[in-house]
Amino acid sequence: MKMDEITTNEMREIIKMDPLVILPIGATEAHGIHLPLGTDTFQAARVADDMAERMDNVLIAPALPYGIHSSMRNLAGTINITFDSMRSFVRDILDSFARHGIRRILIVSGHAASSHMTAITEACRSVVSEHDVKIMFVSDYRIVEEREDFRFEGDGHGGVIETSRMLAIDPDIVGSERPKGVFIDSDCVVLRDASSCMPDGIAGDTSKASAELGERMNNYIVETLIGMVEREMR
Amino acid sequence: MKMDEITTNEMREIIKMDPLVILPIGATEAHGIHLPLGTDTFQAARVADDMAERMDNVLIAPALPYGIHSSMRNLAGTINITFDSMRSFVRDILDSFARHGIRRILIVSGHAASSHMTAITEACRSVVSEHDVKIMFVSDYRIVEEREDFRFEGDGHGGVIETSRMLAIDPDIVGSERPKGVFIDSDCVVLRDASSCMPDGIAGDTSKASAELGERMNNYIVETLIGMVEREMR
Amino acid sequence: MKMDEITTNEMREIIKMDPLVILPIGATEAHGIHLPLGTDTFQAARVADDMAERMDNVLIAPALPYGIHSSMRNLAGTINITFDSMRSFVRDILDSFARHGIRRILIVSGHAASSHMTAITEACRSVVSEHDVKIMFVSDYRIVEEREDFRFEGDGHGGVIETSRMLAIDPDIVGSERPKGVFIDSDCVVLRDASSCMPDGIAGDTSKASAELGERMNNYIVETLIGMVEREMR
Amino acid sequence: MKMDEITTNEMREIIKMDPLVILPIGATEAHGIHLPLGTDTFQAARVADDMAERMDNVLIAPALPYGIHSSMRNLAGTINITFDSMRSFVRDILDSFARHGIRRILIVSGHAASSHMTAITEACRSVVSEHDVKIMFVSDYRIVEEREDFRFEGDGHGGVIETSRMLAIDPDIVGSERPKGVFIDSDCVVLRDASSCMPDGIAGDTSKASAELGERMNNYIVETLIGMVEREMR
Amino acid sequence: MKMDEITTNEMREIIKMDPLVILPIGATEAHGIHLPLGTDTFQAARVADDMAERMDNVLIAPALPYGIHSSMRNLAGTINITFDSMRSFVRDILDSFARHGIRRILIVSGHAASSHMTAITEACRSVVSEHDVKIMFVSDYRIVEEREDFRFEGDGHGGVIETSRMLAIDPDIVGSERPKGVFIDSDCVVLRDASSCMPDGIAGDTSKASAELGERMNNYIVETLIGMVEREMR
Amino acid sequence: MKMDEITTNEMREIIKMDPLVILPIGATEAHGIHLPLGTDTFQAARVADDMAERMDNVLIAPALPYGIHSSMRNLAGTINITFDSMRSFVRDILDSFARHGIRRILIVSGHAASSHMTAITEACRSVVSEHDVKIMFVSDYRIVEEREDFRFEGDGHGGVIETSRMLAIDPDIVGSERPKGVFIDSDCVVLRDASSCMPDGIAGDTSKASAELGERMNNYIVETLIGMVEREMR
Repeated sequence: MKMDEITTNEMREIIKMDPLVILPIGATEAHGIHLPLGTDTFQAARVADDMAERMDNVLIAPALPYGIHSSMRNLAGTINITFDSMRSFVRDILDSFARHGIRRILIVSGHAASSHMTAITEACRSVVSEHDVKIMFVSDYRIVEEREDFRFEGDGHGGVIETSRMLAIDPDIVGSERPKGVFIDSDCVVLRDASSCMPDGIAGDTSKASAELGERMNNYIVETLIGMVEREMR
Repeated sequence: MKMDEITTNEMREIIKMDPLVILPIGATEAHGIHLPLGTDTFQAARVADDMAERMDNVLIAPALPYGIHSSMRNLAGTINITFDSMRSFVRDILDSFARHGIRRILIVSGHAASSHMTAITEACRSVVSEHDVKIMFVSDYRIVEEREDFRFEGDGHGGVIETSRMLAIDPDIVGSERPKGVFIDSDCVVLRDASSCMPDGIAGDTSKASAELGERMNNYIVETLIGMVEREMR
Repeated sequence: MKMDEITTNEMREIIKMDPLVILPIGATEAHGIHLPLGTDTFQAARVADDMAERMDNVLIAPALPYGIHSSMRNLAGTINITFDSMRSFVRDILDSFARHGIRRILIVSGHAASSHMTAITEACRSVVSEHDVKIMFVSDYRIVEEREDFRFEGDGHGGVIETSRMLAIDPDIVGSERPKGVFIDSDCVVLRDASSCMPDGIAGDTSKASAELGERMNNYIVETLIGMVEREMR
Repeated sequence: MKMDEITTNEMREIIKMDPLVILPIGATEAHGIHLPLGTDTFQAARVADDMAERMDNVLIAPALPYGIHSSMRNLAGTINITFDSMRSFVRDILDSFARHGIRRILIVSGHAASSHMTAITEACRSVVSEHDVKIMFVSDYRIVEEREDFRFEGDGHGGVIETSRMLAIDPDIVGSERPKGVFIDSDCVVLRDASSCMPDGIAGDTSKASAELGERMNNYIVETLIGMVEREMR
Repeated sequence: MKMDEITTNEMREIIKMDPLVILPIGATEAHGIHLPLGTDTFQAARVADDMAERMDNVLIAPALPYGIHSSMRNLAGTINITFDSMRSFVRDILDSFARHGIRRILIVSGHAASSHMTAITEACRSVVSEHDVKIMFVSDYRIVEEREDFRFEGDGHGGVIETSRMLAIDPDIVGSERPKGVFIDSDCVVLRDASSCMPDGIAGDTSKASAELGERMNNYIVETLIGMVEREMR
Repeated sequence: MKMDEITTNEMREIIKMDPLVILPIGATEAHGIHLPLGTDTFQAARVADDMAERMDNVLIAPALPYGIHSSMRNLAGTINITFDSMRSFVRDILDSFARHGIRRILIVSGHAASSHMTAITEACRSVVSEHDVKIMFVSDYRIVEEREDFRFEGDGHGGVIETSRMLAIDPDIVGSERPKGVFIDSDCVVLRDASSCMPDGIAGDTSKASAELGERMNNYIVETLIGMVEREMR
């Protein structure tokens, strides 16, 4: 069920049933020459949709399609939200959820950069400290990445994982190129223009990507998350 | 063309052609017993889609589906963004547009409450004062409302205009009830709970709504906006 | 009774009687070649004085003579307060009123620009949500403007209404010129320099202004406000 | 000349002559059982008026009648502005002065509490670091207090100095009592309620006050300030 | 006892005994050609150490070695914290103390500039208004300076007092020069570069300084503070 | 060389030689029953001292002994700085360094929590975007932890690494207990009280700790950092 498609009365009834509300957070960010700018949004939205299909009592909030970026910031199409704006905007959304009596929230962020994650974490902490609400905050990308089977050498932003998943989600908006790119560590130097870390705009060898692999990754994420929710969000 | 479906390279090429970028801003807000919470988002998104269909060189940015609310704030499902969060989040989006060389931006807000409009206006002013960019900011709702033919006595939030337009946009998510409601002026008293201004959650007599009327309204908005853009955003 | 002319002991006694406290908010803003920069302050202060004369139990707080401006911002003498400063300064004043036990507040703003009004409204909302206090917030200008009899074609900033009222309030500080000016709509384009909307610095044909008309306007405002206060602020 | 009584054209001409703009800052603050809440505003305004009378090329800006308070904060009628609001409001005023080309500003604060003074000083520093403008910032109270002849044992807030000056400025709003009060040092303990430092609401023996003494004090301030301006603000 | 050298369990036991926690605040600031940049930190730390030696139940928190500066800001090595950063950082420290149940806090600031003192005072006020905690806030420099015996003509920053005290604290980091400098009053003009007030970087005739004198000053401060604590912080 | 022990003139000369300035950032945080609250500060300071001993042209800034905490926040003695305070305080320090012409800065943070790291990173980014300065930002803890030889099962906060290093740095302030603790993953649930993640206050089996191991770790960090600085900070 999607929150934007129901009425306030339906919402009131659903809240009484103590639903799990999923808030997908995406991004508008350069993802190499082959993946669309909305890659992170499409991935997070897909996770939410799949979970809603397999679980009862799930409500999907409208996706927030913007996030915080550093290395991709200067590439055409990357829309960069500052730390404070992101933190307070997400806090406001969560605060409204809590005020309406929602008690179980899952945030799925397609984007996983550390400032982005910290901003959202700070928003969550602020809301859990003020309301009686449980918030689980994950990046679907990190869930895949931590799994042994899905590790590819040097893989990262716009690499095998993201290309495969997008091929499984919507092949029509994936380009035909399969670029290769490296991530160059800055040795802890804080860069003015972090794009030098990824001269090709991606990290990994996307020739290894496939829709089939992406389907398995997407499934793995959904199953993992369903397990986590069942374990922790009762 | 949708920004989230193109790659960074495509974006770079499009920017060279000096596109009009449309940013739809919606809301997640109680809209009576018959309209969905995402009403404002659906309306703004539809305006953007129709404009992109009828004009060349238009690029649609991902819609922001949250806004600032007062009278509906306490009704189930209304997600309320605070003034400062809204202003700075929108400013960040516009700032990124301008940094990438976009010079013509149209913001269409489905929601038209005055704090919401002022927050976005402040964001626009901040960006036009710092960048060489032209921003037109409208509420599609206000465009209809100002037109003599579309005036219905006591019509307002969730009334004839919004019901008609939603019937034209997506009748499947419009309920079958046709409620009637009044707006009760607070005589300039600043209310702690402004929901008392609209005890029925809407204003107007929605029995007068129809898909055909909504179609005409949607067309009128799109034509008006195309005229304004052609006049002012060259 | 003026707040700045009484002692703290007198204040304490007056508060026990549940007074209506009027806070006049003005502006220092260019008002054409014939009206003084303090026009908005003089008008709001006059409304407060007249109300205090005709009602019992009214206390006038010191007028705040600065506000938020856009179209007049670049003309000599316009002092522009930023949105956040205005909002928090007014909030502090209201907060102090409420902490001292004042329960009925009327804010009369001579200036009526939308950012200015929103900033003050936000301040009021913040205070009514935290304290048991009733706040009525009006612009005297808007009260006149909404009245059929006082509508003059194209009239606006520094026009027939403001010139007439200032002639009634203090003719010595009104110049002898009676300029004519038009307001040029920006078609929703957010302007870097909004002064292009009013190339003559005013809107309307001030040759139609007179002290007699201004007297009637001032009376109308005061009577309207007394009615609103009696209806709503008991 | 008062800024609020002149037109924008007159303002533009005056600015060309490089005027000294005086901004009086007052307060609305309990001043014992005999002095009015606006004491600090009346004193600062009087200094400005007298200087304008004795010097050429002086323009008086509208007085800001609110400030920052600690020890008097809880007494009826004290309106307390928070540090950040005060700093940013004054900064905005000064910033507007500077943008219009004003190059010589004198701020006279009737109130002299240390947080109040620091907030205004911070505002001044911010503006002088960004604009080519000279700002002199004084408290008229401190000027008197530092002068040997005007020292009375234990004199302070609402004491001999302030009572005498108010008797010289406007005896009609000075009560007939001549209270005596002591200031009790808190030994550097930061108090939650600082009113315990001045149990009588004033410090000093006001029976020693007189209009004649006040006149001399007021004159001394004006002469001292004229000297400082002539020495430093060329 | 030093807070950084004990464990959390020891801390928990000490808190039960209602200790006096001393927070030394220093600075990194130019202090003439002969005194080290850390002069203010060394002085505050020494006061804390001496008090801990002579009193029971004292716990010393880690010193904060940075502060707010104006006149020395542009000299090599002065590290300047902005007002808001200082205020909120100190508030956070004090807030943590209070949350852990500490009820008696003494802040000793080696640096005594007025913005610096106000920022810390504001932090203290915020914490005492929210927690049941007693905070005494002093500058050791001001304690000496107010004492008749320790007054030297024109003495100030980096002068006889500071040189003498540093000679008593750690002669190895005091240079052999004994400079002479004057403080030039700015006549209340707010300076863009306040270093012109102290062209020699210090104020006073340091040839009068001696370790013996510094020892007496240090003793005087410690005795004075012990007296104040015993009187006020029970 | 320590910044707080040199004069402004010495500082000016050193800056001309383009020194590496090391800013140690520590914390005051519960570290189990055996390690002192200042553990992170002692470790960062030791790294700075060792680097200064082995390299030319190094200047050590005064250590900042406070940081951002979550899981240890409620344990006695943990002093918690909020995100915004930490970010702006560190930014101010770095900004002052840059204004004085320092071009090479190494920040060593003994504490490595993600909010803490992000706050400092944001501060660094702000400064590198405005000044021509190179900043390397590391956590010494993370350097050890990433090294294969120094990995111990389940080791973390207050575990083998930290106990060993403190034994090498200052055995006198290390308690005799050698506790064992586990880290319990919260499965991405954002906790109100994160102390439940470490019920023993530490993670790891500290019976495996030794001064000899700590010495090797400390050496490894210093050598690694010297290599990084030589590679990147020329």
